[in-house]
Amino acid sequence: MTTPRIIADISISLDGFVTGPDPDLEHGLGVGGEPLHTWAVGSDDPVDAEVLRDSTEQTGAVVMGRRLFDIIDGPNGWNDEMAYGAGHAATPPVFVVTHDPPATTRLDGFTFVTDGIAAAIDAARTAAGGRNVVVMGGAEVVRQSVDLGLADELRLHIAPILLGAGTPLFTGVRRRELTARSARWTRHAAHVIYDLS
Amino acid sequence: MTTPRIIADISISLDGFVTGPDPDLEHGLGVGGEPLHTWAVGSDDPVDAEVLRDSTEQTGAVVMGRRLFDIIDGPNGWNDEMAYGAGHAATPPVFVVTHDPPATTRLDGFTFVTDGIAAAIDAARTAAGGRNVVVMGGAEVVRQSVDLGLADELRLHIAPILLGAGTPLFTGVRRRELTARSARWTRHAAHVIYDLS
Repeated sequence: MTTPRIIADISISLDGFVTGPDPDLEHGLGVGGEPLHTWAVGSDDPVDAEVLRDSTEQTGAVVMGRRLFDIIDGPNGWNDEMAYGAGHAATPPVFVVTHDPPATTRLDGFTFVTDGIAAAIDAARTAAGGRNVVVMGGAEVVRQSVDLGLADELRLHIAPILLGAGTPLFTGVRRRELTARSARWTRHAAHVIYDLS
Repeated sequence: MTTPRIIADISISLDGFVTGPDPDLEHGLGVGGEPLHTWAVGSDDPVDAEVLRDSTEQTGAVVMGRRLFDIIDGPNGWNDEMAYGAGHAATPPVFVVTHDPPATTRLDGFTFVTDGIAAAIDAARTAAGGRNVVVMGGAEVVRQSVDLGLADELRLHIAPILLGAGTPLFTGVRRRELTARSARWTRHAAHVIYDLS
């Protein structure tokens, strides 16, 4: 049995954005940001499918930020066919980092954590039943998990697009050398994995 | 015989910088930016050596910006052991984009082009004798070659480091979808190639 890991896992453009400009509840990827997720939702390449399976099947719990939750809980968000791990396994419990939990939600299975990302990751680790915790976004939560030393691993899916504007992932990150562990690529993404611990 | 290509080719951190903070004539990679070039100058991985060979042996001429030239012509710049293609072939002719050519230079073999990057690439293409033209930096020249549609190909060597600050490569680039052509990786860099044309 391997030790469960905390994995920051997110798709990013070649110029460092995790959404295009002007993301909102109905357009979570912003203007023109859809190609960021082609590898996960529109690829017939078996390598992309394998990467997606690797990223979901070992996942015992998920951590995300509030803006991402609002998109996922919104009109174009998760449903039976389109959710984390949909088609592979039951959706894992999700812990949302927020200062102000919503009064009601469309989806079930979300826990709101009001005392910061470290607490959310701790709660997720407990809930994960010995499997991995995935920190899946947005940018701020992923960046903090790396910057604060909370993540063991960073998995980036680098899409072949220059967005020019949007939500940057790494602005303000502290200098840090990483250990490259593995990489696979398809025409929809370069999938790179770095060890942080 | 293949058609010669215009290739924008540069090393970049995972967070999008081609130098660390405060680059100067003696420290062209800025503070802490050295790991950007480990794949090219400090690797014993044969894949890195092969990538470097592929990037230099087919090169008939080079285009660069003025700041990069000043570093290359400076005290820690190119010499017989450390130059473009050193050890593989003769250094190709280099065309420097500048508004104000220097009165004297330490190195020979550089031509200063004062009417813009497109003119510099044209001159390089003529000088390349049917081989490729490499646009090797800095950030502004590489970004312009992509943005203005002057480059056929973008080769990035993504080093496993977060720099947090420095010279960003893609700031202000226009939105553009690229075609991923190939990728190789080592623990020192993910080497990715995109077709632009």
